[in-house]
Amino acid sequence: MLASTGYGATSSSAPLSKLDFKRREPRPDDVQIDILYCGVCHSDLHTVRNEWGNTVYPVVPGHEIVGRVTAIGKEVTRFKEGNLVGVGCLVDSCQHCSSCAEGLEQYCENGFVGTYNGEEMHSGGMTYGGYSTNIVVRDKFVLHIPENLEPAGAAPLLCAGITTYSPLRQWRVEPGQKVGIVGLGGLGHMGIKLAHAMGAHVVLFTTSPGKREDAKRLGANDVVVSKNSSEMEAHRNSFDFILNTVAAPHPLDPFIELLKRDGTMTLVGAPASPHPSPQVFNLIMKRRRLAGSLIGGIAETQEMLDFCGERGIVSDIEIIRIQDINAAYDRMLKSDVKYRFVIDMASLKQ
Amino acid sequence: MLASTGYGATSSSAPLSKLDFKRREPRPDDVQIDILYCGVCHSDLHTVRNEWGNTVYPVVPGHEIVGRVTAIGKEVTRFKEGNLVGVGCLVDSCQHCSSCAEGLEQYCENGFVGTYNGEEMHSGGMTYGGYSTNIVVRDKFVLHIPENLEPAGAAPLLCAGITTYSPLRQWRVEPGQKVGIVGLGGLGHMGIKLAHAMGAHVVLFTTSPGKREDAKRLGANDVVVSKNSSEMEAHRNSFDFILNTVAAPHPLDPFIELLKRDGTMTLVGAPASPHPSPQVFNLIMKRRRLAGSLIGGIAETQEMLDFCGERGIVSDIEIIRIQDINAAYDRMLKSDVKYRFVIDMASLKQ
Repeated sequence: MLASTGYGATSSSAPLSKLDFKRREPRPDDVQIDILYCGVCHSDLHTVRNEWGNTVYPVVPGHEIVGRVTAIGKEVTRFKEGNLVGVGCLVDSCQHCSSCAEGLEQYCENGFVGTYNGEEMHSGGMTYGGYSTNIVVRDKFVLHIPENLEPAGAAPLLCAGITTYSPLRQWRVEPGQKVGIVGLGGLGHMGIKLAHAMGAHVVLFTTSPGKREDAKRLGANDVVVSKNSSEMEAHRNSFDFILNTVAAPHPLDPFIELLKRDGTMTLVGAPASPHPSPQVFNLIMKRRRLAGSLIGGIAETQEMLDFCGERGIVSDIEIIRIQDINAAYDRMLKSDVKYRFVIDMASLKQ
Repeated sequence: MLASTGYGATSSSAPLSKLDFKRREPRPDDVQIDILYCGVCHSDLHTVRNEWGNTVYPVVPGHEIVGRVTAIGKEVTRFKEGNLVGVGCLVDSCQHCSSCAEGLEQYCENGFVGTYNGEEMHSGGMTYGGYSTNIVVRDKFVLHIPENLEPAGAAPLLCAGITTYSPLRQWRVEPGQKVGIVGLGGLGHMGIKLAHAMGAHVVLFTTSPGKREDAKRLGANDVVVSKNSSEMEAHRNSFDFILNTVAAPHPLDPFIELLKRDGTMTLVGAPASPHPSPQVFNLIMKRRRLAGSLIGGIAETQEMLDFCGERGIVSDIEIIRIQDINAAYDRMLKSDVKYRFVIDMASLKQ
């Protein structure tokens, strides 16, 4: 087994603290990676605190990983030592179901293996995430990070980036279309950057008038305060697509009403309690659609990284030391971050 | 003005009774039709009793109309005297918006003119529907009824038929697909017939085990009692498309969970109070979609009629006399009809 050190939690009430653990011995198709940076996703906090009720302790979170390859198994051809690489939310899947065959491993019919708190397919133990010194990942689930991107800023692309990129592509966002992004957080700020880069006219919906200038800096053409009904009314029946990144329960109808005929609103946040029930009438009268989307497949994640590399797109981040992770969680709960914390993993060696 | 006689209501509490009214004088692009049969749709009852709060009295309902052309305006080229024709839910639209330009008059951005209780575009009065001796309709909104179809059975195709045909086409139902139809009433029985004719493997969902045999006779390959959770579970993640025809509020999640990845459930019934809120998680995990659909455009309605003509598809109906319409409404409320009442308009002359 391979020794690793990281930050993790031993119970739902314990703060994150330093702990030693073991990873599987690298297999012939594995890539071993020294972790440089790891983004901090809200899912990390949900899992650490067992808010989804499925956490196995100890848990080491982190699924926005950027690092350098330190060793490869003998069957690995796509990577070599020294490559800048990324690992996102998935580290394995069955590879033989219809979803895996289509490169949609995130919808694996047999269940994908999460980067942390997942059931490891080979050792039988659990997977441990990126708040750690190193990781061992099956080559098919390792991504190339374009060398021109700043590695720390690229880390959140592995979850926040692909989660917003995939539905924008799925619903064929293209130049000239009007696209709404609901919520300006880790996901929303990537949604703005990516939809803008795809050539769309981008409108940010926020409940905070104070975010107006920052949204425009990120690429929004317009900002609508969603609690202002006359501002909302001015956009009625005009959106081709709306990407809703807000996980807190909120009324969906005011956004659905802004869609054109045949427009779609895709939800990427799952609230703990349901949203108020949307009115069927609003779906029927314009043949509108409400959809969901889960991260993205490995091939699409590489496509997104290349897209970002060509355009110099990274996340807006605040770099922290691993020793400050518990304070960062408290700030994340207050949305006090623009727009993603990224852990400098060198701090773990201090 | 053109004199007409029909059955209508003068207030929300009045039963339907015989009344005389006037239609617009035929214009150069109008078709004048003697009505042979008119189907009885639940919308008729909602409107008569002002359950949607927008009824202007007197109201003469009926939008599943089959009749013979008795006169044409001088600009009309597609019809001649004696043609068997149909009129559905729409009799006019702006003809210049983007939806009209695409032949989707039901989504006219300026609002389509309903066949009854609609604002007539020329006289400024209201439109009166098909529970009557005759009707005058703009030629673009008149359909050809294939002469091989039994005219009474063809009448419900104009609303129940197109309302189910359009979403089946929109979501590209094709041979080999597995399609669910929720609810066996006027819409549901047409959904079974049409999806079966499109080559799909059709499963009917019903709360009434007693409908099993009849659903199979209509073309269902399988029948699932939706309150039986083990029967439902056996179909998990297996449907390409589900057409939900039930307008009463009910939980959507048990059906959404039966969709494959990228599967869609389209709702064609708008409940008076909302359905229980669907879980976002079920949409996200399989990238599923929830959509709405409203009747169909004129070109698609003609396509549906031709499709039915080629395959000999009509509605299963019970023919009634106009004098029995109030009793028919009472029976319709108890779902005591297989599967559509159609009024023989000759009875109006007795």
